[in-house]
Amino acid sequence: MATIVVPANVSYVEDAETLRKAFEGWGTNEKAVIAVLGHRNAVQKKHIRQAYWDLYQEDLVKRLESELGGDFERAMYRWILDPEDRDAVLANVALRKSGDFHVIVEIACARSAEELLLVRRAYQARYKHSLEEDVATHTTGDIRKLLVGLVTAFRYEGAEINTRLAKSEADVLQEAIKDKHFNHDEVIRILTTRSKTQLNTTFNHFKDDHGTSITKALLGEKADNEFVRLLRIAIRTMNEPLKYYEKVLRNAIKRIGTDEDALTRVIVTRAEKDLLHIKELYHKRNNVPLDHAVDKEIHGDYKHFLLALLGHQD
Amino acid sequence: MATIVVPANVSYVEDAETLRKAFEGWGTNEKAVIAVLGHRNAVQKKHIRQAYWDLYQEDLVKRLESELGGDFERAMYRWILDPEDRDAVLANVALRKSGDFHVIVEIACARSAEELLLVRRAYQARYKHSLEEDVATHTTGDIRKLLVGLVTAFRYEGAEINTRLAKSEADVLQEAIKDKHFNHDEVIRILTTRSKTQLNTTFNHFKDDHGTSITKALLGEKADNEFVRLLRIAIRTMNEPLKYYEKVLRNAIKRIGTDEDALTRVIVTRAEKDLLHIKELYHKRNNVPLDHAVDKEIHGDYKHFLLALLGHQD
Repeated sequence: MATIVVPANVSYVEDAETLRKAFEGWGTNEKAVIAVLGHRNAVQKKHIRQAYWDLYQEDLVKRLESELGGDFERAMYRWILDPEDRDAVLANVALRKSGDFHVIVEIACARSAEELLLVRRAYQARYKHSLEEDVATHTTGDIRKLLVGLVTAFRYEGAEINTRLAKSEADVLQEAIKDKHFNHDEVIRILTTRSKTQLNTTFNHFKDDHGTSITKALLGEKADNEFVRLLRIAIRTMNEPLKYYEKVLRNAIKRIGTDEDALTRVIVTRAEKDLLHIKELYHKRNNVPLDHAVDKEIHGDYKHFLLALLGHQD
Repeated sequence: MATIVVPANVSYVEDAETLRKAFEGWGTNEKAVIAVLGHRNAVQKKHIRQAYWDLYQEDLVKRLESELGGDFERAMYRWILDPEDRDAVLANVALRKSGDFHVIVEIACARSAEELLLVRRAYQARYKHSLEEDVATHTTGDIRKLLVGLVTAFRYEGAEINTRLAKSEADVLQEAIKDKHFNHDEVIRILTTRSKTQLNTTFNHFKDDHGTSITKALLGEKADNEFVRLLRIAIRTMNEPLKYYEKVLRNAIKRIGTDEDALTRVIVTRAEKDLLHIKELYHKRNNVPLDHAVDKEIHGDYKHFLLALLGHQD
């Protein structure tokens, strides 16, 4: 379930005019910008961008970039884009900051097969390279094998599963983990090609037969190993995406100095999808509502914008 | 350019009725089947299948399978399917006969990025697995890396190329080949992720700088190495698909005992695309028209059908 609150009837022309007025004169009326764009869904935002262009022959995205600043601008820039275009930007930014490969894993694993294809199309249109091409260029060794496999996957999403296979592949995973061959070709093959339902069955067998979840088994002593870290993120984003997102938010908020990139990314990418469930999980896990935590943690227009995406009415 | 000759006006209902009549009574009227289906394009065949279903509540594909036999049946079965569905079948058959990995390479490399996506969708719909999942299951080691990379690629198809990159990657390829590290990660990365235009530039640099084409350089002493063989096929199908197909036809015909699978595959998959050019290349290279060679080489309804696809009027 989404968190954003969207009015039933929206006039795209009026929205475009309101935004234009907010940009005019000295300084920007950020509140007015949030009042409009914080309460529009993807389809409406697309229409507003078009209406703005028709009225003023100006790219609304570019104008917002020049009007706003800091974390607020970055959040708005991501929010105003189509979801697949936003993911393409997130992936590209993550590749250029080489510590952020978890964002690549997140996009590859938390999206549906068809959504991931849209991201790959959007990435090409924007960067004139394929996503896998850039992932492969920015990585080497095992991490390359894993990430390229994940971003190029087009997983089967039907209901058919093979329980015998799940059992045998749970054993393959267990053997590899026991021998600390986390980067074994078979581990990568299983995680990059099997359907999420099939993997879920495999992970359940793993737990039943070996008494511990695969993510716990991977935690072990190798927690500082970047490859293993990405492997765990892949498993969690495929298997328990909501819990994964809750944890990203928790870590972003609880560390000293908020991780604004992570906070923005989760709220912006999930606000129209399942952020309501993530909010509930957050509350349950942290004994404080997510919006209270956000309210305490960040400030100004950036805060007001994220709270709007979290469902606050202005 | 296509070879098949298609009438301007086609009545799908009449076609369905003609086919039904051809099936009735003792034996099948194969000539009538060829006279219809040997002269219809993909869109028309789809409509005919639908019209046949509407009239008789029977699957035309299944009926053809039961009416026809041998190489003729296999060729017709491939021909009657939608192109992406046909490729899915070809890929699946190739995976089950593990010597036929070149067919996987051919489908992955000779199709456009969007066509390959359609094949991946069709494969899932038919087999309830992803194509890469089955490829990974049926292969190991370097061949797996190469094939999974090729079938999952969604290559950039725009015009932008980077000549400096082409030069440096030509050197990477040359180094790997010189050291006989054909299976080097970088070789696989370059061939599975770069755009075909970019690769063409890279291969030209290779030739300019090293005095021999990459396919010749790969030939060397390792011609019996299956991985190197598939690497060469990948390069040829991306770089010179028409020449590649001409050679497949040449080999299929010249060997003792025709290779019907290869002959059928090339004619059926290219008849609506570029078989006219392949025919011209064949004639030039072998001093005999392709249809004469086919006429001498095979027999019966199978021959009449392939000749129809090659442009013969009945």
